[in-house]
Amino acid sequence: MQAVLNFIDNNREKYLQELKNFLKIESISSDPEKKSEMDRCADFIKEKFSELGLDKIQTLNRDGFQIVYAEKIIDHNKPTILFYGHYDVQPVDPIDLWKSPPFSGEIRDGKIWARGATDDKGQLLTHLKSVEAFLSTSTELPVNVKFVIEGEEEIGSPSLGKTIAAHKDLLACDAVVISDTSMYDDKTPSITYSLRGLAYFQIGITGPNRDLHSGTFGGAVMNPIQEMCDLLSGMKDKNGKITIPGFYDDVLKLTKAERDGFKKLKFSEKAYMKVLGVKELFGEKGFTTLERTGARPTLEINGIWGGFTGQGAKTVLPSKAYAKISMRLVPHQTPKKIEKLLKDYLKKAVPKSVTYSVEALHGGEPALTSIEGKAIQAAARAMKSTFGKTPVFTREGGSIPIVVEFGRLLKAPVVLMGFGLATENLHSPNEHFDLNNFHKGIHCSAAFMNEFIKQ
Amino acid sequence: MQAVLNFIDNNREKYLQELKNFLKIESISSDPEKKSEMDRCADFIKEKFSELGLDKIQTLNRDGFQIVYAEKIIDHNKPTILFYGHYDVQPVDPIDLWKSPPFSGEIRDGKIWARGATDDKGQLLTHLKSVEAFLSTSTELPVNVKFVIEGEEEIGSPSLGKTIAAHKDLLACDAVVISDTSMYDDKTPSITYSLRGLAYFQIGITGPNRDLHSGTFGGAVMNPIQEMCDLLSGMKDKNGKITIPGFYDDVLKLTKAERDGFKKLKFSEKAYMKVLGVKELFGEKGFTTLERTGARPTLEINGIWGGFTGQGAKTVLPSKAYAKISMRLVPHQTPKKIEKLLKDYLKKAVPKSVTYSVEALHGGEPALTSIEGKAIQAAARAMKSTFGKTPVFTREGGSIPIVVEFGRLLKAPVVLMGFGLATENLHSPNEHFDLNNFHKGIHCSAAFMNEFIKQ
Repeated sequence: MQAVLNFIDNNREKYLQELKNFLKIESISSDPEKKSEMDRCADFIKEKFSELGLDKIQTLNRDGFQIVYAEKIIDHNKPTILFYGHYDVQPVDPIDLWKSPPFSGEIRDGKIWARGATDDKGQLLTHLKSVEAFLSTSTELPVNVKFVIEGEEEIGSPSLGKTIAAHKDLLACDAVVISDTSMYDDKTPSITYSLRGLAYFQIGITGPNRDLHSGTFGGAVMNPIQEMCDLLSGMKDKNGKITIPGFYDDVLKLTKAERDGFKKLKFSEKAYMKVLGVKELFGEKGFTTLERTGARPTLEINGIWGGFTGQGAKTVLPSKAYAKISMRLVPHQTPKKIEKLLKDYLKKAVPKSVTYSVEALHGGEPALTSIEGKAIQAAARAMKSTFGKTPVFTREGGSIPIVVEFGRLLKAPVVLMGFGLATENLHSPNEHFDLNNFHKGIHCSAAFMNEFIKQ
Repeated sequence: MQAVLNFIDNNREKYLQELKNFLKIESISSDPEKKSEMDRCADFIKEKFSELGLDKIQTLNRDGFQIVYAEKIIDHNKPTILFYGHYDVQPVDPIDLWKSPPFSGEIRDGKIWARGATDDKGQLLTHLKSVEAFLSTSTELPVNVKFVIEGEEEIGSPSLGKTIAAHKDLLACDAVVISDTSMYDDKTPSITYSLRGLAYFQIGITGPNRDLHSGTFGGAVMNPIQEMCDLLSGMKDKNGKITIPGFYDDVLKLTKAERDGFKKLKFSEKAYMKVLGVKELFGEKGFTTLERTGARPTLEINGIWGGFTGQGAKTVLPSKAYAKISMRLVPHQTPKKIEKLLKDYLKKAVPKSVTYSVEALHGGEPALTSIEGKAIQAAARAMKSTFGKTPVFTREGGSIPIVVEFGRLLKAPVVLMGFGLATENLHSPNEHFDLNNFHKGIHCSAAFMNEFIKQ
């Protein structure tokens, strides 16, 4: 095992260069113009699989962006770990706020800066490189390994569920490991045992059949932006409670033990506010910030647009207004039910003076797993030995819809072992990944495989 | 006089070609990239002045877009008419909704289609062409004429007030004629005796100091779009009343005679709704549509933007949100007072969890003139003889801030003699101008000069 760890240390520069090359590919899954980049990125991973000497390298799906697969089966009597990750990334706008080009992979301050650095290219690469360290040093892998790397995570993984279902035997495993979450802070490793689900919608409001002069027609017809504001404003009250009827009906209440667990984490609201540059926090009354972001459902407006948005003054009364909103869900809420509740709300709230449309863009179930399992405990030991500190078990606010699917279809526990930091600007300009955590992540992945066979 | 009218009829095609050339110039005053087009447009008008043989052709101002001037003084004992118009036009977006390119001046269905066709190039050209008809036929002009054509009307005429003040003697006149308003309908000429004023603002809300991941941070901080929606929604109630404290304090109440006058106009709500494609109208409770658009103050959201507005789903919790809003004012409201009331409202309503900015972009006083004056009565007779129908006196919802300034500085009555139609998409895609009204407008302008000296 020492040979493996030495190999990882000695190849730090080489691994960094590989990550940089990975990050240079502009694999934005939501952008129709980046289709060839998506294919290039899938090919890049297959090439890495091939360099490692993995077997059965293939694309599992026909429709949608490639879900690439590879495996190394050492011994059928050994347990099997399936590593999941995604090579697609978020869009880069607003582009002018990036300090270095989003696909340059510039290195400064001990970090690598690029879209996808922490979410998820940097994190997923740790597992490829840990396996490489075993194979390159002729150290026997403690477990059989399988890789499933997809390219549609940022657009809701539309192909992954059915692909897993279609390849249940090929993908059979004893645990699924996903590194697509964050550490509690830069000194405290953490294992996420719960993720929020997601229900994402686009709402459109149409008033008059064309843009009108606000002087000539102002005051006579419902302004679609006004109606949109009324609707969105009407979805949340002054206490931060979501007022869509029935929204909280299925919410699993936090146990006293969980609330105590949150309290024990040394969370500083003051430091949090400073980092975010706000003078006051705002959220659901009766809950702490960690509870609000990790264990309570939320509704956020992700985007809004309508009318004249250029420089200066144009006195238009617009025809249309749009908004994107999303709800983060907690057990036992479901995107289907939330979609119905939203549609019921709109049906009742929208007046006859406008028409509206609502489109469900993205959905995922919330997840909650036991922290007592063999895999999660092996991950905890690996993290402790790598980072020198016992990990905390956290609930994370983000969503990885596929976590639920993996557990359900493969009947295997899913371990969320994150090496990223919540402050690494995932989904924002200037995304980055701490190089020290990249390096430790590779160590931790190797340690995990070792620990998994121990007990 | 018959020679003049014949000349106008015989030159219909030539005038149309000139209008087309005028409309091909992309004189968007709010677009910094169109500066050279603005200069080209001012030069075009000077050239027209020159072709007519007018005198003292010049640019009156040094700063801002050119205010061009020319005159023809026949006899110092004759009265003088000053014609005002503007050669700048509104932006063209959304460009994809135009059926023909906005600066092509395509002719179809008896109309000319282009940005600026009715607002105001087509309308202002009528007066140049009526003067041309007198001069070309060696018919003595009944009055001395002066032209003031500016290029900043669509951005609030920032240079015109001080320019008038600096050239009071040069601009001295007995009446100002402006054709920048609409006829009541395509068969009914009208003279506008009141215009609404305008107070236009841009509001910005900043929440966290950068875009955040809505999963990780959602629920913990105030979303600036949410706050913007709350603020905008809070400015108007379900009865269409504006709820900014003090907003209605200075509103001059409609007299019974005025309300009766509105009632007499055969206004069909059904036809109006059909044209606009809405199933229900919405406006201030207790007032009719004509009162709402002509004689009551309004507040419209002209634009809103923030967060992710591209295709698909991006789970961002944005840092910033913006909106443009404008109020139409009636006597005796003032933009200054309204700005103060809005700022007071925001100061009180915006919570500590976000910061805000508010910028006054554009303002103009409302105008109300007597319908008994000599000039307005001459205009009424000219319209009756040209269109074959007695004009109605209307209050118009739009704003021409400079109307107030002209009256105040030159101590001359301002006559608003509109040849456009409210349905001609001014400020919208597919702006156009009825060619019959263009032609009649030239006749009417000539008739007005004749009528003015009659009584």
